[in-house]
Amino acid sequence: MFPPDTPARVERAHRSIVPIYAFLETYQAWKSAGRDDACDFALGNPHSVAPEPFVSALRDAVTPRSADWYAYKINERPPRDLVAASLRDLTGLAFEAEDVFLTNGATGALQIVFNALIGPGDEAIVNHPPWFFYDGMILNAGGLPVRVATTPSTFDLDLAAIERAITAKTRLVIVNSPNNPTGKVYGEATLAGLSEILTRAERKHETTIHLVSDEAYRAVVYDGARFVSPAKFHDRTIVIYTYGKTLLTPGQRIGYAALSPRLDGREALRRMLTSSQILCGWAVASALMQHALPALEHLSPDMADLQARRDRLVAGLRDGGYETRAPEGAFYITPKTPIADDAAFAGDLARLGVYCLPGSVVQMPGHLRISVTANDAMIDRALPRFAAARAAAAG
Amino acid sequence: MFPPDTPARVERAHRSIVPIYAFLETYQAWKSAGRDDACDFALGNPHSVAPEPFVSALRDAVTPRSADWYAYKINERPPRDLVAASLRDLTGLAFEAEDVFLTNGATGALQIVFNALIGPGDEAIVNHPPWFFYDGMILNAGGLPVRVATTPSTFDLDLAAIERAITAKTRLVIVNSPNNPTGKVYGEATLAGLSEILTRAERKHETTIHLVSDEAYRAVVYDGARFVSPAKFHDRTIVIYTYGKTLLTPGQRIGYAALSPRLDGREALRRMLTSSQILCGWAVASALMQHALPALEHLSPDMADLQARRDRLVAGLRDGGYETRAPEGAFYITPKTPIADDAAFAGDLARLGVYCLPGSVVQMPGHLRISVTANDAMIDRALPRFAAARAAAAG
Repeated sequence: MFPPDTPARVERAHRSIVPIYAFLETYQAWKSAGRDDACDFALGNPHSVAPEPFVSALRDAVTPRSADWYAYKINERPPRDLVAASLRDLTGLAFEAEDVFLTNGATGALQIVFNALIGPGDEAIVNHPPWFFYDGMILNAGGLPVRVATTPSTFDLDLAAIERAITAKTRLVIVNSPNNPTGKVYGEATLAGLSEILTRAERKHETTIHLVSDEAYRAVVYDGARFVSPAKFHDRTIVIYTYGKTLLTPGQRIGYAALSPRLDGREALRRMLTSSQILCGWAVASALMQHALPALEHLSPDMADLQARRDRLVAGLRDGGYETRAPEGAFYITPKTPIADDAAFAGDLARLGVYCLPGSVVQMPGHLRISVTANDAMIDRALPRFAAARAAAAG
Repeated sequence: MFPPDTPARVERAHRSIVPIYAFLETYQAWKSAGRDDACDFALGNPHSVAPEPFVSALRDAVTPRSADWYAYKINERPPRDLVAASLRDLTGLAFEAEDVFLTNGATGALQIVFNALIGPGDEAIVNHPPWFFYDGMILNAGGLPVRVATTPSTFDLDLAAIERAITAKTRLVIVNSPNNPTGKVYGEATLAGLSEILTRAERKHETTIHLVSDEAYRAVVYDGARFVSPAKFHDRTIVIYTYGKTLLTPGQRIGYAALSPRLDGREALRRMLTSSQILCGWAVASALMQHALPALEHLSPDMADLQARRDRLVAGLRDGGYETRAPEGAFYITPKTPIADDAAFAGDLARLGVYCLPGSVVQMPGHLRISVTANDAMIDRALPRFAAARAAAAG
C-alpha cells in the first residue's frame, strides 16, 4: 500500500484519512451510476450557481491596475487591514493587521499554525466528533492528536475531560464553533471555563497551550443562536477563518489565521507563521483573491434561505420518523439512523438517489450527516425518500 | 527570537531563510526610500502590466458554467489531461493524467513531494548555488539538505561529487534546469550520467532515490540552448512545474507535480501525493486556475523580448567593466562584483537607484543576481549606473 521508504509520519497521517477516501470513492460511484434526480447532501458543496456578487468581485479583481498586480504576494496590506478591522468589530479586541496571515482557506491556515507549533510527539487536543482532517493534519505535522469526546447528546465541550487530557506535551486545543459536524455553537460559560482550564494548565506545566479557534462557519448560525469567538475569553487564541463557507465557494479558497492582540509574545510567533507560509509550499492566498477580499468581506450567506432549508429538512426528517437535533449553526443535520450500520443505511438511501455522509466517517456512528447546501428541488424530492428508506429499514 | 516551545525542526528551517528575510527587508527599505526612476532587478517579478491573453483567460474562467464551478476541487480531469498531453509532447514519455497533481505553483508541488518522501533524518541532495527555499523546505519537512557544489565556472552538475554525497539515507536529488540562479541548462550527457549514478546508488543501498526535476524555467531558454527534461533519462523522476515563470505572474499561482510513467510503483505514490495535498493544508490549485489552465497552457513567454533584454544587459554590463556569463536559460544574469562584499556593492547600486540581489543570499558570494524581468526603460537607465558603481568601487 505504501511506497518503499515512506516516512512513518506520512503513513500514520494517511491511514487516518483512509475512511474518508473510501467514502469519497463510494460517493463518486454513486454519482457515476446516479440518477438525474439525485439529491446530494453528502458534502458542504454548492448546488446552485455561485452568486453574482461573488462572481463580480472576482471579475473586477482580474483586471490589473498596476505592473505588480500579479507579482509575488505574501500578506498584502489592504486585505490585512480589512480583516483586522472585521475582527475588531467581531470581538471588540484590538486585532492588528500584522497579525493576519492570508492563506488558501482555513485548511491552509491550520497548516501554517500546526507547522509552527507542533513538534515530534507534541499533543493537540481535538474535540470529537471532529472535522475530517484535524487528526490527519496533526499526525502529518509530526504530532499526536488527543481525542476528547464532547458531552453526549448536547455535544457541548466536556471541560473536565479536556482538563484531564492536558499534559506537559499539549501544544494546542482546537475549538470548532459552530461545529462541523454537530452544529453546536459553544456558549460564553463554556468558553470562559475552557480559558480557565488552559490558563491553569499552562501554569502547572510551565508551557504554552494555544487555543486554535476554527471559525469557518461563524457566519452560519440559526434562530437565536449567537456566535461568540473564543478570542473574547482566552488570550492565547489563534483565529482561523475561511470565506469558503460564508460564500459557499469552497474551491476558490481564501482564508486566514489571525493572532489575538492579547497573545503574549506574538511578534515572535508572527515570524514563525510567515516562515511557515513560505516553507509549507508558499501557503499564501493568490493575488486575485487578495485583491478581491475587500469586496468579499462584505458579502454574507443567504441566511434566510439556509434557515428555511434547515427548518424544512429538520421538520421533514422528523415527520419521516427520524430523531434529530436542529443544528444551531454550520451546514449539517445529523439524524440517527434507524439501523446501527450507518454506512449500510447511507447505501440504502443512495439506491434511492439520496446521498448522505455516513456518520461513522466523522466519528458519529449511528448517524447521518446531511448538508443543508442542497438545493430546494433536492429537498422536495428527498423527503419522501428519506421516509421510505426509514420505513423499509425499520420494517 | 523564537516563541517558547518552538519545535527544533521549525527553528532550523526558519534559520535557514533568515538571510533571505534580511534581504527582503533591505529591499523594502530601498523601495520605500526610493527614487521614482529606480531600476528593479532584485526578484523575478513583472515590471509591466500582465499580458492581455493571461488576463482574458482568467476573466473567461471567472464566469461559472455550472453549480459546481466553485465547489471543492482536488485534481480535476480536464487540466490533468492537458498537462499529461503537454508532458507527452515534451518528453516523448507516456505521462498519464492520474499522475498529475495540481498545486499553487512549483513551491506547492515541492511541498507535497517533500512531505511524501522525507522523514526525520532523511537526506535530500541540493546542488549549489540553489533556489532560495530548497534547504528551508527540506528542513521544515524534517529532513537534512546535503549541499553539493556544482562545477566552478561552468555551474554544471558535479556528478562525482553527487555520487560521493549519496548515502543510505538519501531520498531525493533536486535538479533545477534551467537553473536559478546560475542560468545553466544541463545537457543530455550530464543527465544520462546522473541517472547512472542514481540507479547504481539505489542498487548499492537497496533504497529508492527520486530525481525531483524543478522545471519552473523550462520555457525560458536563450540562443541555441535546448531544455531537456531529466525524465527522459531517469525513470524515478518527478517533474515540478509552475506557470508563474512562463507567464511572469508569480502571485497568481498554478503549477504541478507529475510522476514519470516509468516510475516504478507510482500507484502507491499517487495516494501519498493526494494525501499530502489534503493534509498539507489543501495544497490544491484553485477552481479558477484549474478552469483557466487549458487557456494558459498554450501561452508562451515573449522570448524575443526576454532574449533582447538578456543580450542588452549582458553586453551593457560587459561594456561597463563587469565579468559575466550569459545565462542559457531562466531570468538571471550573475556578474562578478568588483569588490568581494557583494551586499555592500548591492548597497552602492541601491543608492544609485538600482536594486539587485547580492549573490551571497543564494550562495553565490562575490556576484550579483540581476533579473531580466525589469522593463526596457529600467535597463536604459541602469546601464550607466552599473558602470558608474563599478568605476567608483574599483576607484
